[in-house]
Amino acid sequence: MHHIDVRVEKDIFDVNNRIARENASRFRAHGVRAIDLLGAIGSGKTALIEKIVPALKERGIRSGAIAGDCYGDDDFQRIRVLGIPVVNANTGKECHLDAHLVEHAAEGLPLDEIDLLFIENVGNMVCPTDFLLGAEKRVVIVSATEGDDVVNKHPMMFRGCDIGIINKVDLAPLVGASLDRMEADMRRYNPAMKICRTDLKKGEGLGAVIDALLAEQSS
Amino acid sequence: MHHIDVRVEKDIFDVNNRIARENASRFRAHGVRAIDLLGAIGSGKTALIEKIVPALKERGIRSGAIAGDCYGDDDFQRIRVLGIPVVNANTGKECHLDAHLVEHAAEGLPLDEIDLLFIENVGNMVCPTDFLLGAEKRVVIVSATEGDDVVNKHPMMFRGCDIGIINKVDLAPLVGASLDRMEADMRRYNPAMKICRTDLKKGEGLGAVIDALLAEQSS
Repeated sequence: MHHIDVRVEKDIFDVNNRIARENASRFRAHGVRAIDLLGAIGSGKTALIEKIVPALKERGIRSGAIAGDCYGDDDFQRIRVLGIPVVNANTGKECHLDAHLVEHAAEGLPLDEIDLLFIENVGNMVCPTDFLLGAEKRVVIVSATEGDDVVNKHPMMFRGCDIGIINKVDLAPLVGASLDRMEADMRRYNPAMKICRTDLKKGEGLGAVIDALLAEQSS
Repeated sequence: MHHIDVRVEKDIFDVNNRIARENASRFRAHGVRAIDLLGAIGSGKTALIEKIVPALKERGIRSGAIAGDCYGDDDFQRIRVLGIPVVNANTGKECHLDAHLVEHAAEGLPLDEIDLLFIENVGNMVCPTDFLLGAEKRVVIVSATEGDDVVNKHPMMFRGCDIGIINKVDLAPLVGASLDRMEADMRRYNPAMKICRTDLKKGEGLGAVIDALLAEQSS
């Protein structure tokens, strides 16, 4: 039983990684920088897109998006009204986007008219980490309301991301969460991680996030 | 590829369901009523245990717990100080508890001294739904801070649970969440669901949760 699982798992990851590399090549060929946006349900992934798209537009940067969710189009509808190209990607019972879903979603986007492509993953702190999508950067958003132990509980997520955003900082006192503990846990798991604190409802802290997103990859 | 996946998936579920039935038999034999506690990271699963255990003790009901998490013992430590039997169950990279993990965890518990066993699942709104553990009831906790579209996004979770708790109702106005929408979505997906609203930080709404937990199964 275990033997079969491991072999199939390896096949799944090999296929996914191959398609992820193809996605990355396609994005580069069209001048698209793709961002894999990860985090739990309600952490602020869609809110980040809502706030950052107009700010990027002011700088002459054109955004696009893929809205990933198990079911429904709640996020898709919120992004659509921003007036950018967006595709809804439902995973059904699957708990994460994979490279194949992104490949198909990207076919519905005018890649030559997009500079920054936000791929909003399914709200889930575990499963998406294993599935690369072909993005240039991976960003994880946690909110203070998830509790200040949320980082410690998910080492793989924070080791696998380039940027860590701590959102809803205004609510931290109300839930008794220590932002310093969250940030210290991020640094412990991933010393190279670029860390930002935001209140995305008010749009606070957005400048640092934009700088981090636009920074050249150091590796 | 797809063919192999489906076959292995079926095997995994068959094995899990068999062990889940064995767990259920063992719990019944020891007079234990097990509760599978589901919900996203930070929704209030551990907070519920913290508040409900003393309230149950006042009624002469003895609690026990299995603290499930991918990594670490944050929840375990919070439960341990309540003075009840508790076992930490780390899943590693797995995004959910399964019946086999629960079987082993239960071996570390004095089942004859436990009336109500809280099995706190990994914080995840998708994957745990498919893996029955042998519990008598399944309870899902969502918090208002997750956004009022959280229910709509997860039909399988709400169809598969008996009790739905909407927590952090005090923070709903701060994040602009409609509790009525959340409740309406729950009723739409699962008309038989028992729904409770709580502010577990203050312990508000706990009485209705206890009544729902102790109610005889109608089915």
